[in-house]
Amino acid sequence: MKRHFDADLDDLRGSLLRMGGLCEEMVQSAVKVVIERDESRLAAVQEWERQVNALHIEIDDVCLRLIALHQPAAGDLRLIAAAIKINSDLERVGDQAVNIAETGVYLCKEPKIKLGDIPRMVQVAVGMLKDSLDAFARGNVDLAREVIKRDDEEDRLKSQTFNELVYLMQSDASAIQRGMGIILIARNLERIADHATNIAEDVIFMVLGKDIRHSADPHPASGMEGADAKLKEG
Amino acid sequence: MKRHFDADLDDLRGSLLRMGGLCEEMVQSAVKVVIERDESRLAAVQEWERQVNALHIEIDDVCLRLIALHQPAAGDLRLIAAAIKINSDLERVGDQAVNIAETGVYLCKEPKIKLGDIPRMVQVAVGMLKDSLDAFARGNVDLAREVIKRDDEEDRLKSQTFNELVYLMQSDASAIQRGMGIILIARNLERIADHATNIAEDVIFMVLGKDIRHSADPHPASGMEGADAKLKEG
Repeated sequence: MKRHFDADLDDLRGSLLRMGGLCEEMVQSAVKVVIERDESRLAAVQEWERQVNALHIEIDDVCLRLIALHQPAAGDLRLIAAAIKINSDLERVGDQAVNIAETGVYLCKEPKIKLGDIPRMVQVAVGMLKDSLDAFARGNVDLAREVIKRDDEEDRLKSQTFNELVYLMQSDASAIQRGMGIILIARNLERIADHATNIAEDVIFMVLGKDIRHSADPHPASGMEGADAKLKEG
Repeated sequence: MKRHFDADLDDLRGSLLRMGGLCEEMVQSAVKVVIERDESRLAAVQEWERQVNALHIEIDDVCLRLIALHQPAAGDLRLIAAAIKINSDLERVGDQAVNIAETGVYLCKEPKIKLGDIPRMVQVAVGMLKDSLDAFARGNVDLAREVIKRDDEEDRLKSQTFNELVYLMQSDASAIQRGMGIILIARNLERIADHATNIAEDVIFMVLGKDIRHSADPHPASGMEGADAKLKEG
């Protein structure tokens, strides 16, 4: 029974990592719509979303069945609880990727516009996502902590992009709609980094049984106050 | 033992409803910063956020302990699983309220600007949140379904606000930053409605044991394509 349960937990880990891999692909392809102006990528992103949504339902189902059948305690239970949460974070990463691709398709039909720090934001967000899942697979708390630290850089890049685009929009009204598109994409990427941060926090809880959320407020507000202060400086 | 467990489940329901009540208060006060230009509300929103964050950790902890102690099956297990998810949705509603209040404080320092459909969006979002929690408390599937339907109206109001503000920004460059603020708040409210939708879906799963997520794509993408199409029409 116990050995069977261990195999089931391995399968669960495997499904989540597969789902995470699909989400990474989705983000990478979605930003190619924007950066390479390649509309054709949208179809693949949408197809992957269907797969991610199917995995989302399946993994939730597996988690509940494992709890009901095996009545796990302590570490095993924390693993399953972490899986339930990571599952929902990954599903939302997929949604963000779809939003990026769709805004990208709009931008492809319009004249080129400045991308601000979008390319760098993609690197940071995808790196955080990859490493948070790696930390989950290996139960690596140090790596999880390191992911959480990187979230500040993503927030900084988002504010910078926001400022740069608002400045452009103020000097060129014809760029307002496109500028809004870039700002929305920057927010989507920031949110993907937030989901990676959530996953990293769940890994720490899973391994140590210690809840670190809300301790140092790892999700600084994304209201306007920061961007505004910077704009007034510049 | 069973009777004790039932009392524990009642406590869990009670904690979630208390947390939900705080979140409603947070959203109501946060929009007062915007609509009534009353900066002084920010402090209360921030204080409630601390309470919501404490409840978030406590409720997760209770859920795991209940599973470990009572090894629940079927309906009870689905209730606890729903509680874990609703808990995380409510915590995020609180974050959105803080963002609204902070953007509101920025707007208070600037000349007045059009609010688009923000007042109506607040009514819809808070109504959905209230009713989704009511559906949870009473296991009311019909009410939950009705909440899910209302999400379309919130999306429509958001697109309308987006269009109205972009139009204003195009004709008045000095309104760009403030206009962005209103658009961000509209997105915050749309997201609160999404969380209420998630809660309603969890209620249906909890009661019927049936997963309705992703069936009719209850979360239409919030990329730019819709807003854009409308702008071109108008």
